[in-house]
Formats: sequence, C-alpha cells, structure tokens
Amino acid sequence: MKIKEYIDKICKEAKAASRVLAKTKTETKNNALKIMAEAVRKNASSIMSANEKDIKIAKKINKSQAFIDRLAINKKRIESMAVCIEKVSELPDPCEEIIKMYKRPNGLKIGKMRVPIGVIGIIYEARPNVTSDCACLCLKSGNAVILKGGKESINSNSAIYNILKESLKRAKLPTGCIHLIESTERKATTYLLKMDKYLDLIIPRGGEALIKAVAENSTIPVIKHYKGICHVYVDKTADLNKAYDICFNAKVQRPGVCNAMEVMLVDENIASSFLPEMLRRFKEAKVEIRGCNRTRQLAKGIKKAAKKDYSTEFLGLILAVKVVSGLDEAIEHINTFGTGHSDAIVAESYERVLRFLKEVDSACVYANASTRFTDGYEFGMGAEIGISTDKIHARGPMALEELTTYKYIVFGSGQVRK
Amino acid sequence: MKIKEYIDKICKEAKAASRVLAKTKTETKNNALKIMAEAVRKNASSIMSANEKDIKIAKKINKSQAFIDRLAINKKRIESMAVCIEKVSELPDPCEEIIKMYKRPNGLKIGKMRVPIGVIGIIYEARPNVTSDCACLCLKSGNAVILKGGKESINSNSAIYNILKESLKRAKLPTGCIHLIESTERKATTYLLKMDKYLDLIIPRGGEALIKAVAENSTIPVIKHYKGICHVYVDKTADLNKAYDICFNAKVQRPGVCNAMEVMLVDENIASSFLPEMLRRFKEAKVEIRGCNRTRQLAKGIKKAAKKDYSTEFLGLILAVKVVSGLDEAIEHINTFGTGHSDAIVAESYERVLRFLKEVDSACVYANASTRFTDGYEFGMGAEIGISTDKIHARGPMALEELTTYKYIVFGSGQVRK
Repeated sequence: MKIKEYIDKICKEAKAASRVLAKTKTETKNNALKIMAEAVRKNASSIMSANEKDIKIAKKINKSQAFIDRLAINKKRIESMAVCIEKVSELPDPCEEIIKMYKRPNGLKIGKMRVPIGVIGIIYEARPNVTSDCACLCLKSGNAVILKGGKESINSNSAIYNILKESLKRAKLPTGCIHLIESTERKATTYLLKMDKYLDLIIPRGGEALIKAVAENSTIPVIKHYKGICHVYVDKTADLNKAYDICFNAKVQRPGVCNAMEVMLVDENIASSFLPEMLRRFKEAKVEIRGCNRTRQLAKGIKKAAKKDYSTEFLGLILAVKVVSGLDEAIEHINTFGTGHSDAIVAESYERVLRFLKEVDSACVYANASTRFTDGYEFGMGAEIGISTDKIHARGPMALEELTTYKYIVFGSGQVRK
Repeated sequence: MKIKEYIDKICKEAKAASRVLAKTKTETKNNALKIMAEAVRKNASSIMSANEKDIKIAKKINKSQAFIDRLAINKKRIESMAVCIEKVSELPDPCEEIIKMYKRPNGLKIGKMRVPIGVIGIIYEARPNVTSDCACLCLKSGNAVILKGGKESINSNSAIYNILKESLKRAKLPTGCIHLIESTERKATTYLLKMDKYLDLIIPRGGEALIKAVAENSTIPVIKHYKGICHVYVDKTADLNKAYDICFNAKVQRPGVCNAMEVMLVDENIASSFLPEMLRRFKEAKVEIRGCNRTRQLAKGIKKAAKKDYSTEFLGLILAVKVVSGLDEAIEHINTFGTGHSDAIVAESYERVLRFLKEVDSACVYANASTRFTDGYEFGMGAEIGISTDKIHARGPMALEELTTYKYIVFGSGQVRK
C-alpha cells in the first residue's frame, strides 16, 4: 500500500471508531483499560526485546546518552506504563457532564454537554512510554487517537501498539480507536497533518523544532506545548524565608523540566538582604549563576549574564538572575522574555500579589509557591497529556477534561423562531 | 512603508495595546464603547459617502446585486451598528470571572480565571458592519483586534475605523486596541497569518473559500465558521403538528442563513401520514422540493434529488427530502452528510430523543425545536461574533465568553514541591 493510501485508511478507521467510542459506556472503556494494563505487564519481555532493537540502532548511529535514556524501557518503566493505564481507568469519565443548563424566556432549555473531541493525532519523539500514556488518556476521554512516534522508537512503539490493539479486541471495541503510524517515512506526517476531514486536533509533544514544524504544516487545529522559561520574582514585601525555599525548590528540585525556574528577578529594595544568602545556597547546590551587574556586586565569582540568558530554557543547574526596580519591571520582563508557562511572585503585599496574578500573561501564575507545581497530577487532574502554552481551548496542564469539547443540547416543546 | 513592515508595526502595536486592555477597568471599556456608538451616529454622513465610493466601484466591476446589498450602508444600517455597540457596552464583562476554585491537600488554592485571549485577527468579506461589530466585541472582552476586510469595502471600512480610532483616543485607550489593515494587497493577509508571535487567534468570517484559504495558510490558531447543512429528522413518534411547524419554520422563516434547514429526513413509518400535508405547505410557500424516490411517490411533481443535493447549502427556498428507515439511518446520514452545525429531531419518545442528542455530532442538537435558534442572541449571549463549526475552544454560537481564555491563579503560603 502506498503511504498516502495507508494514512487515508487509518484516518477513516479512526473516524468510524470515534463514533462508536462516543457512545460507549464508561464501564466498557474502563474494562478495556484494565485489560491493557494487564497485557502490558504480561508482555513485558516482548516490549523489552523490541526496545533492545531500537537501542542497538540508536547506539550504532551515535545518539546521545540522554536520548538513549529516554528511549530505553526497563521493567520499572513497564510497571509505570501499566500503573498509568490503571490510574486513568479509575478517574471519572469527563464525557456527558452537563457543564451548564439554563432556560430561555421562550421555554427552550439549553444545556452545554461535555463530549469527546473526536479524532486526535499525537506526534512525539522517541519516548515509547508516550505511546501508552496518550492512548489511554484518549480512550478514556472517548477520543480515537492516531499516534506517530519518533522513528528511532518504531520497534518499541509497534510492540506496545500491538498489545493495545489486542486488548481493544478483547474488550470488544473497534481497533480503530488506537492507531500507530508504523511507517518511518517523513511523508506520513506530512499527509497526516492535512487530514482535517478526519482529525479534529493535533498535539505535538517534544522539542521546539518538532512543534514549530507541526504548527506550520498542519491544517488541523494544533495545541502547542512550547518550552517553559519560568520566573520567580522576589518582591520587597517578600517573607525572605519563603523566598529562599521557593526559589531553591523551583530551580534545584528537578531542573530538567519545563516548570523549573530559569530566571530569578529580585526587587532592588531587598537585593542586598536577600541575594547573598540565596546565592550561597545555590552555590552549595552547584547552581551556576549568570547575573546582571547589580547581582554581581553582591557576591563574588558570578558570571555576567548575556541577553540571551534571559530567554534560554537551561533545563539544568544554571540560573539567570536580575535585579529589577520593582513590580512593574518584573511584570514587564516576564511578559517580554517569558514563554507564558509558569511564573511566581513571593510577596506579602496583598495588592502586589493581586497585580502580579492579573497582569502576568502566563498559563499558571503563583503567589508564594514554587512554579514546580504546574503539572496535571499536582493540580488534581489525576493525569496529564501535556502543558499547553497556547491560549486556545486549553491552557496549562491538560488532562481528560481538556481532551473534550462541548455541544449544545436544546430541549424544546415545539418552539419556532419568530 | 513596505507592506511587511506595515503589518509588523500593526501587530506590535496590537500586542502592546492588548497588555493595557487586559488590565483596563470595565467602566473604561464601556465608556469607550458609548463614545464609539455616539461617534458612529454623528459621522453617519461621512461613512455613507465613503460607502458610496465603494458601491460605485462595485457596480463598475459588475458585482452582483446580492454583493452590493451586503456592501451598502444606509441610515438604518448605521443605526444598527450604533445599537450593537451600545448593547455590547451593557453586557457583563467576562474578564476576571473565577470559573472554578479549589484547594489541594497541600493547601494550595488553585483558581481558573477568565482572561482575554490577547490579539485577535478577523478576516472578513465586503460587509462593512462587521468592522464595528467585531471591534466592539473584542474591546469588551479585553482583546486587541486586527481587522482585515474585503478589498471592495476598503473606503467604508476606513471611514468606520477612523471613527473608532478617534473614540479610543477620547476614551484614553491606546489606538492599538483596534487596527484595520488599510492595504488591499493580498500579501497583507499572507503576512498577517504568519504573525504567530503577536496574534493568538484568527477568526475568518465569510464563504468557504475564504475560510479554507485562511486555515491552510495560518500558523496562528483558527476557529472556523463553516457552512451549515442543517437537518430536521421527523421520527415515527413525532407529534405531527409540532413537526409541520418546526420544519416549516426551519426552512422558510429565513432561508438565506446558516441555521436554516437544508435537508428534511422522515421516518418511513410516518412518511405517508406526514409528508403529503408537509409538502403541500412547502409548495404554498414556493419551496422547491428535491426528493428521494419514496418522497416522490407521495406527492406529484417532485424533482428527483441528486446525491449532491444532500450536501449542498442551498441558502434559499430549496429543500432536499429523504425517507429513512428510522433513527439509526437518520443519525448516520446526519453524521455523514452534515456539517456539524445544527440538527433537530421531532419525536415524543424519550429514549429516541436522548439517543439523537447524544449521537449526532453537531455543535447544536435540538429536540422539538427549530434549528433557527442557533444564534448568540437566541442563546442568551446578548451578542454574536459567529458560529463555530470547529470543536476546539468554542463550538456553536460565539460571543464574549468565547473570546476569552483562562489562566490558573495559584495562592500559596510557601509551598514547595517534594
């Protein structure tokens, strides 16, 4: 089969399956998920031997150790995959929730009902666990899914996909509910991104280049998950003990993720009392500081920050520090250099907290807490498919509810328009 | 100035203005709207004389009468523009509404706050009233707007835009809040659609070709407002008197709009009792019927429906009629040939009504009411910027709330992640 026909076939099957899934009962979906979790555990060895093939090739073509770490599947990772599927099966089904219902003067009762989006395409890099994580979230929210993973993980993805497909059959659901594009041709993605007749949404998961390429080529709506350049601003009214803990946590607890702090902004009125101790703690934790001139006056051996350090997602133990004239400059800086992901203020002034929360244009704005909480689990969603930096449809952590849309259901008794 | 620089300048100004607008008080926005309404009335003659220029050119290049009707501005249209602006000023401000607020076990209080989207681009055809309608809806919802109207209405649009701009100045709001692209170069739109750094959303308003072109070329999220092929299905359990009134209203009351019925589906079990009288009423109202063979057996002189008649938005007094075997075929037909806009069932069976509402995959699904109610005003929104046939962000009628997004505001007391 030619690649175009192959993609066409997959899309049509997914669309048909989405219709079935939209009217499938919660218990049937949950049952399918339980079968999947069990099957993933039972077939651990076949997943791992497929993964070995991928790893072998990746090593041969000299992929980095970080790349191979993300690609590798061990027993622990398989157990996490199974646990994730089980947990999703236990979450409430978002579909058919009535968000709102009201009566019009003419007696029409208008309701907004949460419904699945339809068919969702997920395009991701060589991280095979994404295959099962995304598949189970889409299934639970009533959406058919078409998965396209990085070509370097094709063997692992196929092994996982076959297990999921068999589970769908056992649960008496159409296999079209979950599709994996088992072609490594680049054209496969190009075709997929034009299938707006069948797909309702594309979610790219991965680096900036991948997301940019998807957004540029897709005629299907895309929800982007760009990088996080997160800020903590320490205001002159801050409780310094809170500030030390929050800034330290935001930078050091897990520096390699998108909700870690990359830039610390400090009010000039407390810079001399706050910075020396803060910088000492960072030094102890081996954090490399790149500071503005005023920061550098307050501690020894601090590198000078280049302009680009304020717009770099370091994803490691590097921190840019800037002394600012106060709240206005902090907000302005964040709105100019930030990526609209997660930003925090540490302050005890009621009015200044409220201004920050209102005026910083980011998905998640914090008062007196670490930016590290931006996460579907930490927000109580029980799952996460990503963190949207877009403003359309969903912003911030996305889980089951964010994978739904709504429709208006209107109950009449013969009303006609005058 | 070259066109690229011109678009660049507009986008930057809009982005800066959107920041100001996001923190502007409701009363300031309302005051600006009142000034605008007054200014539109006061400058009626200058708008009309600009419009005359457009009309003259349109006639010269032999534009259709329907085109000229849409383009023409008379005193009545100016009054409607002013009234629309006033009404929007009286609607509740959607911004800063707290949609949800909850506490996490660690004490974090997480709120979802409604906020403006940012900068919205509206691309539309030669209907100058769209200029002021969209401008006032965007302003009220706290968004900066960049308007790009059809080139045939450039003089009218510029006249209206200048009035709005002057009003912004008088209200002490940045003029960047509302921009009109006063270039008729095609490239202007092409550049605009790539300005994802500044624009957050594009809403195309117009025919299918315009919307398709925008969706294909934009790197900015687009909410599409496609055509409406709306169905009414008359079930065997229908109250026939309700069915006559609803079908007649859905087709005849205003046939030229997207929520009018284009296809009537009739359950075979009531076809012979329902259709003859229904078709008689349509004949009286000069509706041309295109029927399936079984329809044609029940009345004389009915044209045979071609396959494409079931997927055509007639926007006039033409109706495709099909006798179906029952609810299943009706749902299947609508989900296959419909456009996901508005579809209705007439039925007294509780179970069949609920199945239709659940399984028909459209923005608005009706039981025992006319599809003609799909409209922001009829839904109680007080305004309308369009009717989305997309599933992402907003579905069905869109007004002020749908022009907003949300952000998470998180209130902590020193929480760090463990």
